[in-house]
Amino acid sequence: MKDTGSESIPEPAVKRLSLYLRHLERIRSGSAKTISSRELGEALGLTDAQVRKDLAYFGQFGQPGIGYQIEDLVGQLRRILGTDRVWNVALIGLGNLGRALAAYKGFLKKGFQIVAVFDADESKVGRALPELESIKVQHIRDLARTVVAKRIRLAILAVPAEMAQEVATQCTDAGVQGILNFAPVSLAVPSDVTESSVDLAVQLEQLAFRLLGSPPKF
Amino acid sequence: MKDTGSESIPEPAVKRLSLYLRHLERIRSGSAKTISSRELGEALGLTDAQVRKDLAYFGQFGQPGIGYQIEDLVGQLRRILGTDRVWNVALIGLGNLGRALAAYKGFLKKGFQIVAVFDADESKVGRALPELESIKVQHIRDLARTVVAKRIRLAILAVPAEMAQEVATQCTDAGVQGILNFAPVSLAVPSDVTESSVDLAVQLEQLAFRLLGSPPKF
Repeated sequence: MKDTGSESIPEPAVKRLSLYLRHLERIRSGSAKTISSRELGEALGLTDAQVRKDLAYFGQFGQPGIGYQIEDLVGQLRRILGTDRVWNVALIGLGNLGRALAAYKGFLKKGFQIVAVFDADESKVGRALPELESIKVQHIRDLARTVVAKRIRLAILAVPAEMAQEVATQCTDAGVQGILNFAPVSLAVPSDVTESSVDLAVQLEQLAFRLLGSPPKF
Repeated sequence: MKDTGSESIPEPAVKRLSLYLRHLERIRSGSAKTISSRELGEALGLTDAQVRKDLAYFGQFGQPGIGYQIEDLVGQLRRILGTDRVWNVALIGLGNLGRALAAYKGFLKKGFQIVAVFDADESKVGRALPELESIKVQHIRDLARTVVAKRIRLAILAVPAEMAQEVATQCTDAGVQGILNFAPVSLAVPSDVTESSVDLAVQLEQLAFRLLGSPPKF
């Protein structure tokens, strides 16, 4: 992942901020109003020192002996991570995975709103997607125009491997600055574009490798 | 991710092996029979020294001045990563994401065969899944029995956050040794179990954070 303006913060620390926020969002409706760095660390398998260090990159949020105000920290983390606003997102590719991503509620909860959906298959173009407030599938050739018109800065790529680079280039040429790539291929993007890949089979492969050293349990 | 028997190999190196293999599998049908560490590195944005170092953990595969035999290296990497065999996998949770994962062809290509599917919703139980050779959805209460009967060592969790820990514990109690978790929650698993989480919203959030420092391009 390329870094565009937050050079001093290690990437793993930023990733942990997302995990802190996720945990706090889960417990905020509970009775506790505060949480200690130890409690927050324990929920995520981290030390209290790690939690304090990560948060200290961004300011002084906690109070000694009391901990962090949960509501306050949720707000601070959202502001830091940029999910205190709505981001317009394009979804490209409407195969099985694309359909699942279109229906995934977790994006909107974080402020990521899929405002345009594209596919290269003419038979899908024009179809309204009930899971996305009936927005209509557009042909990929309309990508550049729509990216600008809807001010889309993030794109989710769920296209076949052989199309991924071409579509990524179309995205970045149009002004997209961040790409979440589900195609099983490495993408070359300009240095001012951020790209993150999720290869589901590779994830399983990594688990399998770790299992090779141990016999089955049955 | 916990490590169970391959302590000396850094996790990032193992992850890069997966990327090397993925690239080699894509180009193996081409005309080239060999590939240099420089070419392999360039395709993935790595230096040739990194490629050589990663592969050297596992043996001496290349020849100076010639490079690596592509077919040979594919075989070696599959053996190293454990994808030279078929792994039986359970898929748990048949919401939108679970359905997409059931239909995802990339798992089987890597030797990961979904041999059992579970859900807690009685209305889904007994339904045959055409995308998985018509295997029938089982109730989650049959998990332990089926894990043993079908020798399932890997599980994919696509259940709601509030169910994830309970299901993970059922899996590990039954003998599952690796869990790929799509629920947006951190799981506690025994030390001899490997767990890897994919939180799709967190991935986008991380991209958004990197974009905060740069203005929109339109």
